[in-house]
Amino acid sequence: MKHAARLERLMEDRSRPLLVSSLVNIRYLTGFTGSNAYLVVSADKAIFITDGRYGEIAEPLVAALPAGELVVYRSDLPGHLGKAIGDADSVDIEADHVSWAFSRTLDSKLDVALSPTTGLVEELRKVKDTDEVAALERAAAAGDAAFEKAPLLARKAATEGDLGLALIDEMRAAGGEAAAWPPIVAHGANAARPHHRSGEGELGEGLLLMDYGCVAAGYHSDMTRTIWLGDEPDDKLEDIHAAVLESNEAGIAAVGPGVEAAAVDEACRAVLREHGYEEMFLHSTGHGVGLEIHEAPWVKRGSTDVLEPGNVVTIEPGVYSPGQGGVRIEDMVLVTEDGRRVLTHSHKEMRTG
Amino acid sequence: MKHAARLERLMEDRSRPLLVSSLVNIRYLTGFTGSNAYLVVSADKAIFITDGRYGEIAEPLVAALPAGELVVYRSDLPGHLGKAIGDADSVDIEADHVSWAFSRTLDSKLDVALSPTTGLVEELRKVKDTDEVAALERAAAAGDAAFEKAPLLARKAATEGDLGLALIDEMRAAGGEAAAWPPIVAHGANAARPHHRSGEGELGEGLLLMDYGCVAAGYHSDMTRTIWLGDEPDDKLEDIHAAVLESNEAGIAAVGPGVEAAAVDEACRAVLREHGYEEMFLHSTGHGVGLEIHEAPWVKRGSTDVLEPGNVVTIEPGVYSPGQGGVRIEDMVLVTEDGRRVLTHSHKEMRTG
Repeated sequence: MKHAARLERLMEDRSRPLLVSSLVNIRYLTGFTGSNAYLVVSADKAIFITDGRYGEIAEPLVAALPAGELVVYRSDLPGHLGKAIGDADSVDIEADHVSWAFSRTLDSKLDVALSPTTGLVEELRKVKDTDEVAALERAAAAGDAAFEKAPLLARKAATEGDLGLALIDEMRAAGGEAAAWPPIVAHGANAARPHHRSGEGELGEGLLLMDYGCVAAGYHSDMTRTIWLGDEPDDKLEDIHAAVLESNEAGIAAVGPGVEAAAVDEACRAVLREHGYEEMFLHSTGHGVGLEIHEAPWVKRGSTDVLEPGNVVTIEPGVYSPGQGGVRIEDMVLVTEDGRRVLTHSHKEMRTG
Repeated sequence: MKHAARLERLMEDRSRPLLVSSLVNIRYLTGFTGSNAYLVVSADKAIFITDGRYGEIAEPLVAALPAGELVVYRSDLPGHLGKAIGDADSVDIEADHVSWAFSRTLDSKLDVALSPTTGLVEELRKVKDTDEVAALERAAAAGDAAFEKAPLLARKAATEGDLGLALIDEMRAAGGEAAAWPPIVAHGANAARPHHRSGEGELGEGLLLMDYGCVAAGYHSDMTRTIWLGDEPDDKLEDIHAAVLESNEAGIAAVGPGVEAAAVDEACRAVLREHGYEEMFLHSTGHGVGLEIHEAPWVKRGSTDVLEPGNVVTIEPGVYSPGQGGVRIEDMVLVTEDGRRVLTHSHKEMRTG
């Protein structure tokens, strides 16, 4: 675990305290996985604040931090935060990770100026270290293992929801610790909904879109494949599939160090434009993936992110035809020093027979 | 589904628009289960705003709402929110459910005064309707079914984590749709941590605390039992178990319409005080449970909630002895017109042999 090194990077050049309130950021910096904690990071110390449920769990984690101190509170959280902030004139606040209500409470109870910041820890999280890449690869491999069995599982499953659960079981058997989210399993025209909620929809011949992933050591995998169950694919859907696959491959080929994330989005989009499907691409191309299923960098139009080695992003163009179906193909891609490495290895053919 | 009726209650007496930004509150009011939506509720209309991933899913839900309108946006969310708010002078904001950053964005981009509110929809959610109680009972029954097999499953499982997964499988087999959260399974001294994270801890003779639940139609169950695996329980832990059980029963007996939630907490606490264990009770007595695993009303010291028919709360006193173990016993209790109905039915004995 490299938590101490991560925290040290955050402590460097810290001119005033930062109140870390995102539990994901706290996990990244300390390894803590509970549901309530705050971390006040200054240049020379890191004060970890939690409640009685987590005191015993937090103790060894905090002991391993550079200049870590543990505070276990029973009440008056703002008061304890104020004490941890100390006599600083102002404190950086993660403005995306405190509610407006909580910022108002702090503002009224503490005698310190609140300064909104965004993305300080997320900026560090964009570049994965070797432990993180290893966890992402384990999670991606579990997703691949499940896909290998997907046609068989689809034949046995009665509904989309059943197939989703079967995919979870396969990922678990392959070392995944949990499903990242309920799998999106969409059959036939349901696949026209990019985020279809799988339930009692019946399976059978035809289009099958599966978007799913799992978690390994807190790190998420995310992949999508769209296949055809049965004999001959519908011509139109086969044409869409070919265009989406070309778009997916163009996006992956565009990934590399120093490349603007928006340019990767445009690489995917240009292919779909050429095929006349751009208007049916209803979302952006991709997102970073790590401790969160969606995190920086953002692969979309208008993104200001520039890719750098250690980033892991999804490339997931999709084309959706209401009433008929939809195709999405999604891979996880690691940016390397000299290009890219794709972390998902499943085949991308539509025909599985 | 009673979404329309719930929304109508919120629209009553609405003197200015309310921006509902909590996805849980939006699910409660509309049935929508996606990951991005906003709802602007005025006295005479409800404007549902989401992105292209969810347009097709949202359409029938919005059509079923009183005066519902659907907006699917591609960019400029603040602009679309502003249009939905219309020419009102001010808009109520769910201050707990927008980030400070988002409130600042709205404040700078919209020509309308933002008025912070808290708990408007949560207040409605406190009182469960018959559909909701039925879902909570289904979820609780799945938890009970898993507990019945727990001693057997514990003998087969190698680790706490394995037992947690086995409990999930049993709940799923009994109709639960998903685990509400990874089960807390704590063996021996691990049980001294109220929110122990179950992993590779080995099972065997001794104390076993299981805190787990599942989801049915979006509604959570939550229960805890602490049992002894093997022959003769440790005397001290048996004494703690007896005290916690007495506290749990006193808390349940105190539940009823018109009762202050803080008084229920005190009923649990008084029993533990009498037994000399009050200092080892590290958390509050309980919480409401519904679409969220933790929601109002709050059964704790200082709570201003007064129980009313339709509330469903947990009663979960616990006593924790560092290095030795801990005991928690948790039930779900529905407040009825003339008292209470316990929704969890598992036995509470420590000895299972």
